[in-house]
Parts: sequence; C-alpha cells; structure tokens
Amino acid sequence: MADRAALEDLVRVQGERVRGLKQQKASAEQIEEEVAKLLKLKAQLGPDEGKPKFVLKTPKGTRDYSPRQMAVREKVFDVIISCFKRHGAEVIDTPVFELKETLTGKYGEDSKLIYDLKDQGGELLSLRYDLTVPFARYLAMNKLTNIKRYHIAKVYRRDNPAMTRGRYREFYQCVNDRRILDGMFAICGVPDSKFRTICSSVDKLDKVSWEEVKNEMVGEKGLAPEVADRIGDYVQQHGGVSLVEQLLQDPKLSQNKQALEGLGDLKLLFEYLTLFGIADKISFDLSLARGLDYYTGVIYEAVLLQPPARAGEEPLGVGSVAAGGRYDGLVGMFDPKGRKVPCVGLSIGVERIFSIVEQRLEALEEKVRTTETQVLVASAQKKLLEERLKLVSELWDAGIKAELLYKKNPKLLNQLQYCEETGIPLVAIIGEQELKDGVIKLRSVASREEVDVRREDLVEEIKRRTSQPLCIC
Amino acid sequence: MADRAALEDLVRVQGERVRGLKQQKASAEQIEEEVAKLLKLKAQLGPDEGKPKFVLKTPKGTRDYSPRQMAVREKVFDVIISCFKRHGAEVIDTPVFELKETLTGKYGEDSKLIYDLKDQGGELLSLRYDLTVPFARYLAMNKLTNIKRYHIAKVYRRDNPAMTRGRYREFYQCVNDRRILDGMFAICGVPDSKFRTICSSVDKLDKVSWEEVKNEMVGEKGLAPEVADRIGDYVQQHGGVSLVEQLLQDPKLSQNKQALEGLGDLKLLFEYLTLFGIADKISFDLSLARGLDYYTGVIYEAVLLQPPARAGEEPLGVGSVAAGGRYDGLVGMFDPKGRKVPCVGLSIGVERIFSIVEQRLEALEEKVRTTETQVLVASAQKKLLEERLKLVSELWDAGIKAELLYKKNPKLLNQLQYCEETGIPLVAIIGEQELKDGVIKLRSVASREEVDVRREDLVEEIKRRTSQPLCIC
Repeated sequence: MADRAALEDLVRVQGERVRGLKQQKASAEQIEEEVAKLLKLKAQLGPDEGKPKFVLKTPKGTRDYSPRQMAVREKVFDVIISCFKRHGAEVIDTPVFELKETLTGKYGEDSKLIYDLKDQGGELLSLRYDLTVPFARYLAMNKLTNIKRYHIAKVYRRDNPAMTRGRYREFYQCVNDRRILDGMFAICGVPDSKFRTICSSVDKLDKVSWEEVKNEMVGEKGLAPEVADRIGDYVQQHGGVSLVEQLLQDPKLSQNKQALEGLGDLKLLFEYLTLFGIADKISFDLSLARGLDYYTGVIYEAVLLQPPARAGEEPLGVGSVAAGGRYDGLVGMFDPKGRKVPCVGLSIGVERIFSIVEQRLEALEEKVRTTETQVLVASAQKKLLEERLKLVSELWDAGIKAELLYKKNPKLLNQLQYCEETGIPLVAIIGEQELKDGVIKLRSVASREEVDVRREDLVEEIKRRTSQPLCIC
Repeated sequence: MADRAALEDLVRVQGERVRGLKQQKASAEQIEEEVAKLLKLKAQLGPDEGKPKFVLKTPKGTRDYSPRQMAVREKVFDVIISCFKRHGAEVIDTPVFELKETLTGKYGEDSKLIYDLKDQGGELLSLRYDLTVPFARYLAMNKLTNIKRYHIAKVYRRDNPAMTRGRYREFYQCVNDRRILDGMFAICGVPDSKFRTICSSVDKLDKVSWEEVKNEMVGEKGLAPEVADRIGDYVQQHGGVSLVEQLLQDPKLSQNKQALEGLGDLKLLFEYLTLFGIADKISFDLSLARGLDYYTGVIYEAVLLQPPARAGEEPLGVGSVAAGGRYDGLVGMFDPKGRKVPCVGLSIGVERIFSIVEQRLEALEEKVRTTETQVLVASAQKKLLEERLKLVSELWDAGIKAELLYKKNPKLLNQLQYCEETGIPLVAIIGEQELKDGVIKLRSVASREEVDVRREDLVEEIKRRTSQPLCIC
C-alpha cells in the first residue's frame, strides 16, 4: 500500500504538470510527452474503482470445503471414526499451535517446513506439524502411559503443494495407537553413523531404481560399494511371513541383535495378522524406510494398489494413504526424567481419500445430498406464509428436519424444483381447501404421488416414510 | 539455549580455575571463595540430567481436551448440529489461516488481537479471528448469494484469557445463517460521527451503571449531556413487542428513517417469533450494542438467565453463550465491484457451554463414558490369547464394538475391573470348557448374571442387549 500511495502521488504531480503546461499553452509536443508519462504512471497504478485491491483467494496450499465436499468428507470420517470406535479408541484434541520449543528437534530436516507464528510478545509459537509430537507432549504432561486414542485434526506443513495429487499444505491426519510390535530398520546392516542418511536414500526406492539409489549411497554419501550391494540384496526383497523366516535363518542378519529383535517381532506380528485373517494383505517390504526421525521399531504404509479406473476417470497417483510406526523415544524427550513410554500409531491421509471418493462420485455422476432435510413445507396458493411458518415450527418441534422457501408467495413449481435440486424426498403442501379439511397434502418428490394426511398424523407419516437407514458408501 | 551455553562455558572456566587453585595449593580462603562462585553459577544453570530444559505446557490461553472432555464436547456438538440439520443447514469449512489482508479492516480496534504468522517467505498470513469474515470471503470468491450454512471450527484471539470463566484464546465458534430482518442501532439518535464510540460505551451497560456510562460519553467522548440523557432514556428500556409498538409511536424516533426501518423489521420479527411460539423468550433490549464493526442491522445475544445452582456447584459467570446479527456490507468488501450480499448469523460460544455441562456432570458425579465399546473379550484361564484374538476379530467383522486387554494372560478379575472402570456393559468370557462346548459365557457387568450363548448366536445376542438408543443429556 505504501508503494501505491507513492505512485498515486506521482500521478497527481504529473497530472498537475500536464494541466499547468496546458494553461501555459505549451507546445503540443511537450504536452504530448508529459501526457504519455502520465498515462504510463496510471497504467502502473492499475484500475481504481475506489475499492481496495487484493487477491480473493485462500492461502497457498489450502482450500475451502463446499457443502458437497463436506458431505464427502463426513462420509469418509464416518467410516474411519466408526472403525476407531469399534476397537474401543478414545478421542483427544490439542491446540492448533504449540510452543515452538515443543516441536524443536523432533523432525530432522523437515523442521524447515514448520509454520512459525510471528513474535507479537509472549510465547514463541508454531503450528503443529503432525499429531504425533503434540500427543507425546500430552502423554508426558498428563503422565499417561496407557491410552488408545484417535485424533482428527488439520496439521500444517510449508510444503510445495501438488493440489492435483491430493497433497495440500493443510491436510487432515488421523492417528490411532495400539500396542503392537518392535523394530525392523536395524536389519539393513548400515553403519550407525550413516544410518539416517542411508535410510533417506532407501526411502527413494519407490520412485527411482536401485542403481540410482546405490550411486547416491556410494557417490554422495561415501558408502563402500560392497556395503551398498549388501543393502541392495536385502532392500529389493519383499514378501510375507516366509521372508521373515528366511531372514531369521540368514547367517549374517541373525547375528545382529537389533535385526533379530525386529524379525522376531515381525514374526509375532504375522501370527496375529493370521488370527485376524488379514496376513495375505500385508507385504514385508525391506525397502520401506519412512522419513521422520522419531520411529524406533516397526513402520508401515497403506498403499492403494490399483488406481480407480472406471470409464472416464483419470487415474490418480495417490500412492500411500496411511502410514505410521512405533516411536518409543518421543514421550521421554518431554519427560523431565526421560521416562520412556512405548507408542505406536498411524496417520491416515484423508485428503487423498477425499480426492479419490470425490472423483468416483463425479465419474458416477452421483448426486451428493448436502442437507438431511426430510420435508419441504410448501404452499399451493398465495398468502399462506403464516401457515407455512406455523407448520414448519410444528415439524421442527417434533424433531422432523424441515425447510421452507424464504419467499412470501413462492410458486408451487419453484418449491418442487427446490426439492429436486436438493434431494428433499417429501413436500408437505398447504392449500386453502386442505386448511379447511384439517389435512396436509403429502407429496413424494420421486413418484409425484400425493395423499391427504390428517394434520395430527403428519409427523408419524413423515417419520415412517424417511426411516430408511442412511447408506454410507 | 544461547544463554545456557554461555553459562555452561562460565561454569567450565570457573571449574578449571578452582582445580588450578587446588593444584597450586592456594589458600583455603581463596579456594572457598572461588568454589562459592562456582556453586552460584551452577545454581543459575539449574539441574542438568542431560535433558533439554523446557516448560511442559500448552500455549497460553489454549487447552487440551481429554477423552472425558471430548465426550462432553461431542454431546454438546450433537445437540447443536442436529438443530442446524433440522433446519436444513449445509456445512462448510475454511482454512485456519487467511491472507493477512483478508482480515485487515474488518474488526476495528479488535484487530490488534489477531495472531499473525511469521514471514517465512511467500504470503503474509494470519490465523482466523472469527468464522464470519472467512465466510464472507468464501461467498465473494464463489459468487454465492444464497446459502444457509453452519461452520464449527476454532478461532484465535490474542485475548487475556480468563480460563475459569470459560474464556480461552482458542475457542469454538458455530455460525448458522438465516434471512431475517433489518436494523436497530439507528434508533439511539447518536450523531453519525460518534456512532461507533458511543456504541462501545452503551455496550458496557451490562457491566457498569448508566451514570458511569454517561460520564464516559460526556467526559471522555465529548457528547452533549442532553444528548446522553436522551440516549439514557432509550437504552435503559427493555421489553417485548409492546415496546416496539410504543417506540413506533415515539414522535422523535418515528421521524428517523433508520430507526423506523429497524423498528418495522423488529415488529415483523416478533410476528414470526409468535408464529414459532417463542416470542416470550425474546427481550427487546435497547442497551444491546455488540462490539464488532460489521453489523448493519438486527443484533442479538443469548444469555443464560440463571447460573446453574445445584448442590456443591460454584456458580459460573458465563453470561452470553451465543450472539450474532446482520452484516450486509461484509461480502461487498471482498467483491471487486462491491456487490452486496445480505447476511445474518450467530455464533455459539461452545467453550462456555462445555464448562457448564462439565461442571454439572462433576456435581452429579456422573460417569462419562469415553468409548462406545459394547463387549470385552475376556478369558477365564491362561493360554487363551489366540482364542481371544480370534473372537474379537469375529466381533469386529460383525460390526460389534469390542476390546480385549493387551496382556498375554490377564486375570479374570482385572478384566472385569476394566469393564467397571470404562463402563463396558458386557463381557464375553472364553474358557476351556466353553471352547469344547462351542459356547461363550456372556456376562452382564451391572447384574453379574452369566449365560452360555452359542458362538454362532453371540453377535445377535450382543446387538440385542446393546441396542438401546444412546441418550443425549
């Protein structure tokens, strides 16, 4: 705005100069030159209609949710939350920002992606980067060692957003935790000092070839080629419990205490997965590394194997839709005495799931209702606003979801069209004759059938007709 | 941390000095003096167990929600959301932060309470201060002129929090909008130029006497005493539709175009309130002013008339629990052509409602369930972990909310105690004899009755016993 004010000053000064030259009857050439300068300045200033200039948008990497998008979001959440509840999880919530120092030293290189709040006096704050660190802070603060919780909330990362792939700077993360099992990373056999940097190389194996990863390990990170090859032999393997068994027989690997612990726990995990009847859905993949620093044991990702490929659908590169692992050291970082609390959890990338569900609904041209209204209170003639208000109030009091058009004398056709557009299944029509007879005409929007219902029976009739359980797709 | 590092250096240097003096066999007095300095420095440094030092807390004015508090929150939300849905409202969501300029010039003096994000390159951002301005931005961006929406989300104000009174820097705001009616402020007869500042004086009438307000108007704000008196005659009145009628007959007031419009609309509002059967619950209070700049017509507050006063309960000064009004100019501030979209809405202070409900539950010593688990899968003997896992998996697959203790061989007593503590109503007990007989022992926690149920009938029996609708208090 300061620049604009300066420009406006220049335009004013130049305008006065032009007016002065005209009054002094200066040469046409001179006037033309100064007018050209004035026009140039005005062009820089841009149009001005007396309104402040600003870009009408949400911040980069964020989005609004329309009622339609919210309806999809709620369906997805219903499915996820009912799963958490089925397993006896409790829910907690934490503030959107934390003390800056609470987040310090928890994310490794990703720390540069944290949103800080401006120092306006008082505490230094940052927006939460995930739900895991606030959860660990919560456990330490409340001295809890035993909780199975989920948490649905937005987290904030100053990432380069790729909106079309369902990645946003603002997205939802759901975490649920359970006591499962221990360790896998140690089996790679990487020297301790290069553990993290080699991990992040391995993590690239889902995008680039082993050759490229090996080049990075040897060329950039100074790993001996034979060590890289040994890693390569392992990380290119994947399978089920039989691979676990095989590696437990591996002469080198079975000598490593950490690898042995991790493999033992993975074996137990597969035993439980078998009891749950889902062992065939889990692949033991030695190339899975995960970015975040705080994992200490088992890690996992949920990946969509096949992109949706219905007619007219663009395949979406959604990849991983959930991921997590064990983080036994994090709570201890907050405890004054460093007491450890073992934790394990996962995070669901619901933004990606929204994208997929939204796309499917569009491909199917499926109508998504954004309200649950059961009945529209309508009138067949004019001057019935008061009667409509009385009836809708009766229905609300009886717990019926009801609406009316906010017009004094709406046409019946417009009222019926509103139902078609919004998916309201029933119309309660008031007319002068109906009022005299003590009835309401109840119309089914789908079948166009109409029946007269005694006013005192209307609530029951609406409830009867709309009691079908809602289907969650 | 920089200060700490400097202190640590000083401690090290001083420690070396003491050691040096000892080696040099300096005088006991001299050594003692330097040791005292060392101890003082160490005291400044505080205890060091190799852990970083920080305060384990949430940011000032924010709080966590425990599972118990979340259960209360969800009950409150259920009631509010079902009311919104009953009236056919849609739901939207917007990002937690907005471009800084989106919020600029919308809140008057309150703007200083906005949380800004740090400039880390890119756009300048602020945390939303309410849900109204983001809603107006949403309407302008999507060129919407007709929507009835609610929005439940946290908003952020750098306020001085009074936690005990249910006020937090972070709190929830719910807004729902409807087309109702126009204007009330103009009837005060305040000169245009002093309108806002006199408004904020009037707004204090719920806390201080008319005399004090008058003194402020005359002494600080330079209003003529006779004008203040005239205002006083009006703003000390309150009543129902009869007061509206009376003021419509007021010789001065009825000459003022704005006042007349406001009164006319209020009269219509009372007609509708009568049709809805709630006119007696609404008081027309001429002292109600509201702080925010953007209101243009009717304004309102929902106030708790009586603090809860059950045995052992501290009365809570909660005051207003919802408030809102008409803001016809706000969307136009975002529209490039200044096109106006009339809006009206209200905001529910759910944090305050949580406080009240929480306090009631505590006073009643009411047990709040934090899970919905229907049945605990338990074992009567050792070595039945696998059987427990198999059964719980069967129940999950059938949609039953079930848990088991994460122990290999839990004692039956501990399993029953877990149900007592968490409110799980049923226990499905596996024993060796039951396995042989193909039955499960189903125990009611409340009555302690046990019956053998055939395994294939277990799901139906659990559903039958737990199908009572959940009660919303």
